[in-house]
Amino acid sequence: MHDNFQGEQHPGVEPAPEATRGFRLNHSMLRVKDPEVSLAFYSRVFGMSVLRRLDFEEMQFSLYFLANLEADDQVPEDAAARSTWTFQQRGLLEFTHNWGSEEQEGRIYHDGNAEPQGFGHICFAVPDLHAAVAWFDENDVEFIKRPEQGKLKDVVFVKDPDGYWIEVVQPSLMANMGDA
Amino acid sequence: MHDNFQGEQHPGVEPAPEATRGFRLNHSMLRVKDPEVSLAFYSRVFGMSVLRRLDFEEMQFSLYFLANLEADDQVPEDAAARSTWTFQQRGLLEFTHNWGSEEQEGRIYHDGNAEPQGFGHICFAVPDLHAAVAWFDENDVEFIKRPEQGKLKDVVFVKDPDGYWIEVVQPSLMANMGDA
Repeated sequence: MHDNFQGEQHPGVEPAPEATRGFRLNHSMLRVKDPEVSLAFYSRVFGMSVLRRLDFEEMQFSLYFLANLEADDQVPEDAAARSTWTFQQRGLLEFTHNWGSEEQEGRIYHDGNAEPQGFGHICFAVPDLHAAVAWFDENDVEFIKRPEQGKLKDVVFVKDPDGYWIEVVQPSLMANMGDA
Repeated sequence: MHDNFQGEQHPGVEPAPEATRGFRLNHSMLRVKDPEVSLAFYSRVFGMSVLRRLDFEEMQFSLYFLANLEADDQVPEDAAARSTWTFQQRGLLEFTHNWGSEEQEGRIYHDGNAEPQGFGHICFAVPDLHAAVAWFDENDVEFIKRPEQGKLKDVVFVKDPDGYWIEVVQPSLMANMGDA
């Protein structure tokens, strides 16, 4: 429990300083070429909802903040209150759409896994990996790795419309992953 | 509230299908050159704890899963149970350390913001942006943008040890951001 577990100790790790109280990882941002295509994919295939779109006319871009709504989420209807609420959450996905990018041909963004490497992937937890794989097939999702392929069994990787990698795991199958 | 708010409607958006019930955005993965340096930075400057390290001897890499522990987090002590718990959470940060990368010179990973673009940044919400800026200065954090710079007031960007961009915002200051 939290009173006992203060995090694993590894070289470099320090206890969380008081100055960081209330810090929270709010989102990860991916550039998307065509928001209509990305929103269709993430809303249908992964069940995400748009909490907030913010438009920046002068700078010619829009932001979309997405989450899987949960039963106890108390989402304000009022847009300004919803902006504040959105930035208080944990683990959202943010899209940046630079206006006009959807008119370019083919994939235009780098997924981070070819050279030069850097960013790797986002990951969804799902209650039933087998059912999720069937759902992805039903929706013609492009697989990088099916659960039975490769050295990491029960771990799936698919691609989103921009080519970004999405890992998919079932938490109950991960208990013994990576034991040294 | 959730019963009323079903997400903003934009072109492409579909209602969350039943097949996606329980899907949850678990983590974003960044490659890090030297985990000792990255863990020092994210634990001290951003207050994150290591929920779980997983080692893959055959493939010569390790994974670290980090979160800002919160008062109501019920973290299991048992490692296998903690692995399952880790993959059930929302919005973790995952590091991948390819063994030996720390022996290379300089920054070795691409942050996604120079060409070729793709991944943009992660973002932390903080209770007090002014205090956070003072804390970053106290810790010699490299700023990309201070709150008063640029067109987006009250939004901060700093760099992590690999050069990845970290946005920092105070939710209460974001209520009117991006009004069209």
